Amino acid sequence: MPVPEALANDINSKYIKKPNINKSASSASEYRNWTLLLTPDTPKVILSHKRRTESKVTVYPNLTTEDTSSAKQPKIVVHWLERSRAQRIIWLLEELGLKYELKIYRRTENRVAPPELRGIHPLGKSPVITVDDLVLAESGFIVEYLTTRWGRLRPDPSSPAAMQYQYLLHYVEGTLMPPLVIGEVMQQIKKSPQIPFFIKPIANMIVNGVYNNYLNSAYEGNFRFLETLLDGKEYFAGEFSGADVMLGFPLVEAAKGRVKGFDKQMFPNLFAWMDRVSSREGYKQAEARTEKHEQLLDK
Amino acid sequence: MPVPEALANDINSKYIKKPNINKSASSASEYRNWTLLLTPDTPKVILSHKRRTESKVTVYPNLTTEDTSSAKQPKIVVHWLERSRAQRIIWLLEELGLKYELKIYRRTENRVAPPELRGIHPLGKSPVITVDDLVLAESGFIVEYLTTRWGRLRPDPSSPAAMQYQYLLHYVEGTLMPPLVIGEVMQQIKKSPQIPFFIKPIANMIVNGVYNNYLNSAYEGNFRFLETLLDGKEYFAGEFSGADVMLGFPLVEAAKGRVKGFDKQMFPNLFAWMDRVSSREGYKQAEARTEKHEQLLDK
Repeated sequence: MPVPEALANDINSKYIKKPNINKSASSASEYRNWTLLLTPDTPKVILSHKRRTESKVTVYPNLTTEDTSSAKQPKIVVHWLERSRAQRIIWLLEELGLKYELKIYRRTENRVAPPELRGIHPLGKSPVITVDDLVLAESGFIVEYLTTRWGRLRPDPSSPAAMQYQYLLHYVEGTLMPPLVIGEVMQQIKKSPQIPFFIKPIANMIVNGVYNNYLNSAYEGNFRFLETLLDGKEYFAGEFSGADVMLGFPLVEAAKGRVKGFDKQMFPNLFAWMDRVSSREGYKQAEARTEKHEQLLDK
Repeated sequence: MPVPEALANDINSKYIKKPNINKSASSASEYRNWTLLLTPDTPKVILSHKRRTESKVTVYPNLTTEDTSSAKQPKIVVHWLERSRAQRIIWLLEELGLKYELKIYRRTENRVAPPELRGIHPLGKSPVITVDDLVLAESGFIVEYLTTRWGRLRPDPSSPAAMQYQYLLHYVEGTLMPPLVIGEVMQQIKKSPQIPFFIKPIANMIVNGVYNNYLNSAYEGNFRFLETLLDGKEYFAGEFSGADVMLGFPLVEAAKGRVKGFDKQMFPNLFAWMDRVSSREGYKQAEARTEKHEQLLDK
């Protein structure tokens, strides 16, 4: 679905300054003119500048999908940071039946994203995808974009479920993820090799304080809320949709024993839903693909 | 813009089970059948159930706006938790020139939202607004809804800026806010009266570790990104829009000295933008209104 050249040129001259490529990774000016542009309501890509900084990222050609340069669909590349939320975008692409390439980025020793990711998007976060020359970031937005552009895995825009869907895309990253991330930071504090053993008990006391004063009730409130949203329903917004894909990552992570009290007895709807989504072909495909990568990375 | 009764009944019978009102605040069943429903692409409210749990919330009638029950616009109520992100919704409503009522909720001693907020929305978070019988939560979603429904303060959906706008609504809560919230948690640890004085130095060491390993670079990366988005622009998505309103809260909070290194010299575009938005009539109105409330709450 390419943009007619005349339109692209027109838009280009109107809205976009030429990119100012600057090789220094630490200069603020290198991000100048970075722009993300596409139309929201129509499945039509407008234009955007992909930064041309050299990337030192490993691509495993044997693990990418087949040639994606065919005229049938735009070229999609998922910039995948190991053990990150980008997992869900791979799942969504499998569900949509789209071809895509994977580029894998290892975390640094501090467990953060490597600077190479900034060559794709200035924030250097994951997930980031490129669709032809378009750069897309922010999970909720990527899901909104892909399901809108391909007109699938989202409720009919005129149906009441559509609003529930749109709400959930904001809810997952805006409300559900932050306490899970804070929990992750707390676990890092507990395990930090920078904290000497005789201070560990105090560190644990502080961490427990954060759980007792804030995290535990945040977890419980969110899981209860989600549990009741599934009452009498198979999926969160009617039919299986991008909202289920968004919710898959935090819930599966939470179910891996990372959140105390998140179990089948307390939340039968959520666990039945997890069984339902994880038996989908697209989920299995995404898992198989990323497992291979994780194994490679562990070597 | 009320929904024709026949349509409402039709939708009601199709999509909504009757709410199961349960007085016990600790029962999961009380949240059953809570539903958020409206159409995304048309400015037409469908229906939703407002829970009917009694609220013990203080309303200051002298501070609410004039009668909002006129037929001219739906009745809008902002459920405002003191010192919360709901501030931005008040600002947006002022900018849209809409009438609204305020209900004010005090934080509990643990600084969390009071249980009464759960009478409005099961997560008990702020902001939550009601538009007639519709309950809306999640800042980015509320901004999207209001600007779409009233067709103002958002770029023309067919313009390239519209996608930037939609991206930013996800970005603010999904990426910018979490490290700011974690910073807030860290400050709470530092100030916690539960930590004895002889442990304070260790608590501070742990907190500093979180800043050095994660928060400082997250802040810097985000502010640099935003700084460059404003290069040559007055507002984040072309004309002044809901995206500026979303960004106002975290940036103004960060500029209050809460984030080290966030200053005029480093980020001239952002500080010029803050001067620009804070001199707007809507911003001043919102500030005047909430200042009165804060003063009342401080008594």
